[in-house]
Amino acid sequence: MKISISRQHFIKAISTVSKAITSKSVLPVLSGLKVEVDATQMTLTGSNAELTIVTHIPCIENEQKIIDVQEPGIVILPAKYVLEIVKKVQDEMIQLEKVDSGLIRLATASSEFQLNDLAVEEYPVIQLITDQPDFHISSNVLKTIIRQTLFCASTSESRPILTGVHFILEKNELLAVATDSYRLAQKVVPLPKAVDFSKNIVIPAKTLTELMKVLEDEEKIVTIYFGDNKVLFTWDDIYLQSRLLEGSYPQTNRLIPTEFHTEVTIDHSALFQAIDRASLLAREASNNVVNLNISANKIEVTSNSPEVGQVRERLTPANLLGEPLRITFNARYALEALRALDGDAVTISFVGELRPFIIRSKNDEKVTQLILPVHTY
Amino acid sequence: MKISISRQHFIKAISTVSKAITSKSVLPVLSGLKVEVDATQMTLTGSNAELTIVTHIPCIENEQKIIDVQEPGIVILPAKYVLEIVKKVQDEMIQLEKVDSGLIRLATASSEFQLNDLAVEEYPVIQLITDQPDFHISSNVLKTIIRQTLFCASTSESRPILTGVHFILEKNELLAVATDSYRLAQKVVPLPKAVDFSKNIVIPAKTLTELMKVLEDEEKIVTIYFGDNKVLFTWDDIYLQSRLLEGSYPQTNRLIPTEFHTEVTIDHSALFQAIDRASLLAREASNNVVNLNISANKIEVTSNSPEVGQVRERLTPANLLGEPLRITFNARYALEALRALDGDAVTISFVGELRPFIIRSKNDEKVTQLILPVHTY
Repeated sequence: MKISISRQHFIKAISTVSKAITSKSVLPVLSGLKVEVDATQMTLTGSNAELTIVTHIPCIENEQKIIDVQEPGIVILPAKYVLEIVKKVQDEMIQLEKVDSGLIRLATASSEFQLNDLAVEEYPVIQLITDQPDFHISSNVLKTIIRQTLFCASTSESRPILTGVHFILEKNELLAVATDSYRLAQKVVPLPKAVDFSKNIVIPAKTLTELMKVLEDEEKIVTIYFGDNKVLFTWDDIYLQSRLLEGSYPQTNRLIPTEFHTEVTIDHSALFQAIDRASLLAREASNNVVNLNISANKIEVTSNSPEVGQVRERLTPANLLGEPLRITFNARYALEALRALDGDAVTISFVGELRPFIIRSKNDEKVTQLILPVHTY
Repeated sequence: MKISISRQHFIKAISTVSKAITSKSVLPVLSGLKVEVDATQMTLTGSNAELTIVTHIPCIENEQKIIDVQEPGIVILPAKYVLEIVKKVQDEMIQLEKVDSGLIRLATASSEFQLNDLAVEEYPVIQLITDQPDFHISSNVLKTIIRQTLFCASTSESRPILTGVHFILEKNELLAVATDSYRLAQKVVPLPKAVDFSKNIVIPAKTLTELMKVLEDEEKIVTIYFGDNKVLFTWDDIYLQSRLLEGSYPQTNRLIPTEFHTEVTIDHSALFQAIDRASLLAREASNNVVNLNISANKIEVTSNSPEVGQVRERLTPANLLGEPLRITFNARYALEALRALDGDAVTISFVGELRPFIIRSKNDEKVTQLILPVHTY
């Protein structure tokens, strides 16, 4: 291989595929970034066996030469260093060349790096599943779904299936749900037209975290390919493919209550701030547990940390239906649930002080945040 | 005590004195922040026994009531929580009151915190040494002195005296020097008029780090009081007092060479970037060691990390005097020394490849950065 390439294009592509590369990989060659050049484009691949990101740089773009190919070829660059190197060198163009000694020469006018090559032949063959059923979605809608559910996925490996987000695509609806068994988030997206297949997959949380980083602010149409044990997201020249979690996700729809004894509507940010302040002392001193006391025309959020002190926050409900109630819960769960909801007011619905309660944006049943209370005796 | 106080003034003062408070203090009461209110002002004190910061809030400022004192008094607030509390409550004024139960009540219209009091009588008496000889200096000059020397202070407790910066005030000159025995930084500040006393003190690095945080961007005249085992910096309504390091600081002036075999002047930022890039591979793979090769009309910075690869950076000297030279040094020391120097070009002066070399801004002998080379065999 012997090329010269626009540094800005190279930085952007390396930065994208690097997100799939972890330093601790089972296969040593996966600590590298695969670069393949032919007469028309460069293909970059980063992978950690579970998650793979592929992107391309065309040799010519808008009649401008992005890559000058003197000799096509394949090399594996050390991912840990190459992004910093291309960011820190100065010229507009970078020369990349496999030299006789087997080293890779990366150079500008004043800088010259000679990097050890990793064995190209050991790099696994990764097939992109572009032959599977596909589905189109706006990147903004996709980001909202992930933002509103992902934080509820479990971080414990004791039930691996819960470390992913469950996506169900059927007829006129896409449903996403995540739970760590202490709380649950569910998002329903109605589809403009029904899909002619149905799918039921669990995507690893780590994949969705990286997907969020790679998706740009600008709105795109993302194509999702659903395989049997893989999923592929693609837009522009970016392909992000991940294995799926195996096993059956628990039935979660029956967990969400539909009849309530107490229902209260409160200003969103006032509630957030009250819980945030009430948990200030509880955060380190005790279990980050706060109480919500609902009585006629008055709502209080309180906490008590004997070693430090106590807090009492007063709120005025916009609307209150049903019976008085006192319930105890983890403040962090409530704050994260509120952060995932949009709108100026939220409705909290309770079945009883020992039963899960749900938080929704006022007049919006598309997103449900469910929290299990803490039992205090 | 029973007062109400402007939240913004309270936040600023708490944030200042909190910098002296550490959570792990020998005296439990020092984890608290002492608040003393009389008819004219509030005095806030934070201390970790070695470093103390005191500041005041006047009850009336520019004819505006900042503090409404209903009852004067003293309380100790839990420093760990109080800054976050006053930042997160909403009203313009905060009520602060010692209630009958011995708790401290901190409240706004909707929030009420009851904090456990710490024992006021256990708080040590701290005398500010405002009766000692004093000296005035611009805060900007003081910040520059600290920025150019502090990073060379030792972080190892094996020679405690080296964990401070040595200040020598004598006649027409203030000299500051720091060394960790691998490198040294020295700054000389000529004084507009001679002082009528001389002082020779070692200020702990931690004190100077906190002083940098408390000094604002706006230029002030700082008064420094020199005690026998304490130093006090004061400006506006802020008093920062620290113990000094005991013991005699090594004689450092004889370490700085004055005759050189090789001297080269180079563009400051080009040199910085070349060393930064040359150390990219060396940083983790080896000892962060780079080589500088000086020959007629050519300067190269190189590094070799067998596991990853090698780097060669070419620089053009603006001026070169003396003999060719090859020297090996720690890249981080060189980068930190260069960061502490101002100006567009630097002059590096060498005695030989096994002897300390010095870096100075071109035509400026006020700041000297000295680095010991690494011996390679």
